[in-house]
Amino acid sequence: MAVSPCTKRKITTILFDYLALSLLSTTASGYMISDAGISGRNDLFGEILRDEAVERLNELGKVSDADGYLERTFMSPASVRAGNLIRGWMEDAGLRTWVDRMGNVHGRVEGMNASAEALLIGSHLDTVVDAGIFDGSLGIISALSALKVLKINGILGKLRRPIEVIAFSDEEGVRFQSTFLGSAAVAGILPVTALQISDKSGVTVQAVLEENSIEISEENLLQLKYDPGSVWGYVEVHIEQGPVLERLGFPVGVVKGIAGQTRLKVTVRGSQGHAGTVPMSMRQDPMAAAAELIVLLERLCKHPKDFLSFDGHCNDISLESLSNSLVCTVGEISTWPSASNVIPGQVTFTVDLRAMDDMGRESVIYELSNQMYQICERRSVSCVIDRKHDANAVICDSELSSQLKSAAYSALKKMAGEIQDEIPALMSGAGHDAMAISHLTKVGMLFVRCRGGISHSPEEHVLDDDVWAAGLAILAFLETHM
Amino acid sequence: MAVSPCTKRKITTILFDYLALSLLSTTASGYMISDAGISGRNDLFGEILRDEAVERLNELGKVSDADGYLERTFMSPASVRAGNLIRGWMEDAGLRTWVDRMGNVHGRVEGMNASAEALLIGSHLDTVVDAGIFDGSLGIISALSALKVLKINGILGKLRRPIEVIAFSDEEGVRFQSTFLGSAAVAGILPVTALQISDKSGVTVQAVLEENSIEISEENLLQLKYDPGSVWGYVEVHIEQGPVLERLGFPVGVVKGIAGQTRLKVTVRGSQGHAGTVPMSMRQDPMAAAAELIVLLERLCKHPKDFLSFDGHCNDISLESLSNSLVCTVGEISTWPSASNVIPGQVTFTVDLRAMDDMGRESVIYELSNQMYQICERRSVSCVIDRKHDANAVICDSELSSQLKSAAYSALKKMAGEIQDEIPALMSGAGHDAMAISHLTKVGMLFVRCRGGISHSPEEHVLDDDVWAAGLAILAFLETHM
Repeated sequence: MAVSPCTKRKITTILFDYLALSLLSTTASGYMISDAGISGRNDLFGEILRDEAVERLNELGKVSDADGYLERTFMSPASVRAGNLIRGWMEDAGLRTWVDRMGNVHGRVEGMNASAEALLIGSHLDTVVDAGIFDGSLGIISALSALKVLKINGILGKLRRPIEVIAFSDEEGVRFQSTFLGSAAVAGILPVTALQISDKSGVTVQAVLEENSIEISEENLLQLKYDPGSVWGYVEVHIEQGPVLERLGFPVGVVKGIAGQTRLKVTVRGSQGHAGTVPMSMRQDPMAAAAELIVLLERLCKHPKDFLSFDGHCNDISLESLSNSLVCTVGEISTWPSASNVIPGQVTFTVDLRAMDDMGRESVIYELSNQMYQICERRSVSCVIDRKHDANAVICDSELSSQLKSAAYSALKKMAGEIQDEIPALMSGAGHDAMAISHLTKVGMLFVRCRGGISHSPEEHVLDDDVWAAGLAILAFLETHM
Repeated sequence: MAVSPCTKRKITTILFDYLALSLLSTTASGYMISDAGISGRNDLFGEILRDEAVERLNELGKVSDADGYLERTFMSPASVRAGNLIRGWMEDAGLRTWVDRMGNVHGRVEGMNASAEALLIGSHLDTVVDAGIFDGSLGIISALSALKVLKINGILGKLRRPIEVIAFSDEEGVRFQSTFLGSAAVAGILPVTALQISDKSGVTVQAVLEENSIEISEENLLQLKYDPGSVWGYVEVHIEQGPVLERLGFPVGVVKGIAGQTRLKVTVRGSQGHAGTVPMSMRQDPMAAAAELIVLLERLCKHPKDFLSFDGHCNDISLESLSNSLVCTVGEISTWPSASNVIPGQVTFTVDLRAMDDMGRESVIYELSNQMYQICERRSVSCVIDRKHDANAVICDSELSSQLKSAAYSALKKMAGEIQDEIPALMSGAGHDAMAISHLTKVGMLFVRCRGGISHSPEEHVLDDDVWAAGLAILAFLETHM
């Protein structure tokens, strides 16, 4: 947190802007696939890319640790079952499979040249709590469906380079409050200390892997890193989890970049006591303090302009862009000892903070921390702000993005016959495994429209035809590697 | 919540006031027991009333469902073990014992006249989470110690009336968010619907009793009620859980009354979504709303004068008294689905609200609810305020209080030789089983000094000599019933 607040005069560049989307050359008039004339066509592979893919999404969506809702966290029993299911589908697509020491499930086909740089395609098999069935799973299943089509057509062996699909074991970070355990290990950016992170019940990453008969040491964690020279690039298909494609009327879009993200854990400690006997004026109540901190967080993230001072020395921050892209969330909070008749001794809550601009995000964290500490001091409670996770914004590779755009265009053209508009390019406010993999190789992403922009919820939904469009686009992309 | 806010002009009576304590005739110069000359005296029964009582407190304090801290909730395995331990001590004191269908443990001696009105003495065997060892247990153990002295002296049979000690199964209400399950059943004020209240894991009161081989129906719940004609009165010894006795320098004091209490459960529902993709301006975030509600609650309870309007028609409320006695606590809060990268769909928190004045408490709840609903409406989230528990303030019986005061005076005099000051009389901000039993019979309470006023915490502490003073006072009180 060494970054100073912004200098207003030096703000010149608008790097990212959600709203800039409205300036895209695509019209917002809408683009829908018409059923007419496509159902009987052989080159659309509807049975595999739509029907079977949707069936698999539903099947995988039932693999849950919870009763009545979807929950699969890192290496949980349901995650292991999900991995086995995916491994079966990988083999069905003609891939050689294995599970690595971080629980990532791999499926690979060598193509014509096993020593050529491989194309990686991936997404994650874990979920949030009370999740939807498309987040993560769609990217794995659409890639496997496309490869299955190549296998059926007998052209899997004609690929110019190896293709490897990876179902990453952890992207959401629900269990260990640390995202990308799987993809960061493959990218070689997971610190060995990650093995000692504990979940809420005190079980470490290492222990949970051991429970699943995976022996992992610091040494063989480092060996999980792929040699950058062996990799050509990484592609990920993912649901958008936001409302833009729906608003533009497109089933798929290309991702320009992914917002940077910081996760904080804030711990407020006060004086525990009986709810009936400590006068209000004598309390050091960490719950009331935490509430004030959360109200501050919301105000700051809604109106960063009102909070950031203008005397610092940063150059590249657009407060305008920050105002448009900054999002802050408190998703978890707990008190100790958590009884209605006890003034808590401690309150802990999470802060998820994202922005398109890394310097802007740092400025916000700097200002937020300062003001939080001031509030805690005034209230005579102690306040510890831990940075649990940081990921800088990622810019997608222009060559890969261009190929994905062409592939998406050709897929939609096949389905609709004619397209007037250009495939939209958009930013991602959500983090993805591509963020971690960008440390290893160039990355590109394809977003798929989801209803109402809703994700991380059982209401999450992708149209069957949009699943199909995604599969067809990735198939078209693979065909450029023949 | 039909009570209107206060009319300023009609405020005339100060019913209760914490601060009025400073006007008590007792000086604050301090009153400490001196060791000199008492250790060898036979009429002080130090081995039973101090040494054994302290030993039992420590032993009972180890009976916990948790590892490393004390936790005994309604009918938990540790509560059942604690009940068995207490039952053994009851038998050791010469009492006939049984456990009733709400898990209360009873021990009774008939004295000279089994059909005379019985004196009940009780306190609770359950605890909060991360509790101290004196809350509840001290009242049970000091009564049993005093009765054991009578038994050893061969005068248990000379009591004019039956004495019944009851260790109540639930006073804290931790597990079912509903206090006094045990004592309310004995008092006949527990609604039969209480059997269907569920804990966090969905287990009902009825089911948890059945798990412990106790068959309870609505009918035999009603049969637990004692016949008021069979009861003479109820006495409870309890640690103060506040700082007053320590400040005054007295080991024990008599309780004038117990503050009224309301427990609310507030549920805020918004729109669940991905933490990265929903712009701040489009959110309906129940966590940010809950934080604002908690900040409001604290402000209102610190400064009720600033919030209550003066156009209503209540007569008996003293805003001054309210300002001095009102305490509000949020002890529990949870989000759903509780993941750091998900905007919660729902946030639930508890409110514990206490005041010496029942009308004042109603006014505060009325105003609080109004303002909470306004905030939720402005934020487009839904807000449900459930009243989970209400207990009016209780005034202790003057005759019983006078007897307890004399007994405490005689006990302290025995220990110290001489006392200049009157035994202090104070209000209780904490609820006690005496509140429920006041619906059955007249009640009196004795408070015992605790270090720093701290309770509901492992830091809770009572001096060995203060345990002794409490035992000696209750013994002196019992001797008035010979």
